[in-house]
Amino acid sequence: MKIRTILAAGVSAMMLMAISSCSQKNPEAASDTAKDVIENIMTRTSIRQYTGEAIGRDTLETLVKAGMAAPTAVNAQPWAFVVVTDRAVLDSLDAVHPYAHLKKAGAAIVVCGDMEKALEGENQAYWIQDCSAASENILLAAHAYGLGAVWCGVYPNPERIPSVKQVLGLPDSVMPLNVITIGHPENPDHQPKDKWNPESVHYNHW
Amino acid sequence: MKIRTILAAGVSAMMLMAISSCSQKNPEAASDTAKDVIENIMTRTSIRQYTGEAIGRDTLETLVKAGMAAPTAVNAQPWAFVVVTDRAVLDSLDAVHPYAHLKKAGAAIVVCGDMEKALEGENQAYWIQDCSAASENILLAAHAYGLGAVWCGVYPNPERIPSVKQVLGLPDSVMPLNVITIGHPENPDHQPKDKWNPESVHYNHW
Repeated sequence: MKIRTILAAGVSAMMLMAISSCSQKNPEAASDTAKDVIENIMTRTSIRQYTGEAIGRDTLETLVKAGMAAPTAVNAQPWAFVVVTDRAVLDSLDAVHPYAHLKKAGAAIVVCGDMEKALEGENQAYWIQDCSAASENILLAAHAYGLGAVWCGVYPNPERIPSVKQVLGLPDSVMPLNVITIGHPENPDHQPKDKWNPESVHYNHW
Repeated sequence: MKIRTILAAGVSAMMLMAISSCSQKNPEAASDTAKDVIENIMTRTSIRQYTGEAIGRDTLETLVKAGMAAPTAVNAQPWAFVVVTDRAVLDSLDAVHPYAHLKKAGAAIVVCGDMEKALEGENQAYWIQDCSAASENILLAAHAYGLGAVWCGVYPNPERIPSVKQVLGLPDSVMPLNVITIGHPENPDHQPKDKWNPESVHYNHW
């Protein structure tokens, strides 16, 4: 066997191993994909200090797409997303939300419930759960991109709702759930809180 | 250079490429980690048909840990999780929830709000958002493990709340948000819905 053939065979074998270790997805096997996903969930934490750098429009669109991939009750998708990158609008939002940390943020995504798409009657309130699941997807996607983000509550705060609505010109039927502030983290080595508490887990019965 | 040395150098280089392609995490670079995370979010879909196989306790604990990694308003962590694997309890839950699909499920995780840990006054309602973020983490972690899952709403349904509370023996202060049904999918090739709708995205102003 010539050196070139042996090398090619070795390299091919390693490439195959690399590809399969990155893409395997067997039930309950802790594949590299599963490890990446779980690690991303476990290491995400609220980031409130940013460098002031801008965030690309493609990245922001991917974050919104991640939000829209969340499940919704009866598949109503009762949501709307306002992506804010304009410095004047970020500053106006910052002025009406005491904890939004927008001064050096790159962007904000305001996740809203759209009552024209929401379910009717007592089921209308599912928009809160649906939009919260979408918000968590956005936070996880931002973290995966190495961005920092923080979920800043708006609904049901009676002062923040009308002022956020006014800044963004939201119609009456659209309710802001939160402002998700996003930016390049000033300190990329933020440590997540360890929130694991076995006392909050019950098996089969309380 | 001997063949063995050349081969070793080639193999080392491939291993280094494989490792770095799996672990790099630069801001806004679509690293393999980011791709895995985004793909996991985008391909998750509600799965309602299962094989009936059991799910390992370690896996279920990891799913609950993922849930508890969600952010909560003022870090209240106002939650409790009931992990159900007992067939009799799964059947009792199935009997009181018309859409829980528990007959061939491997397990269920009932995500609850704990009003003793929740914020006070008008802020108490943040438990719904916090527990919804936790629920989405559980769904994403289950999907990463190759498991199927579906979020079956309980709160605020006035019939389902008292019956789920009774089956699980929940205290008065504990409110079930949902039943997350989990199982090994009967058909592992479920296609996610494409829910991307650019009309639901606004830039800087409505």
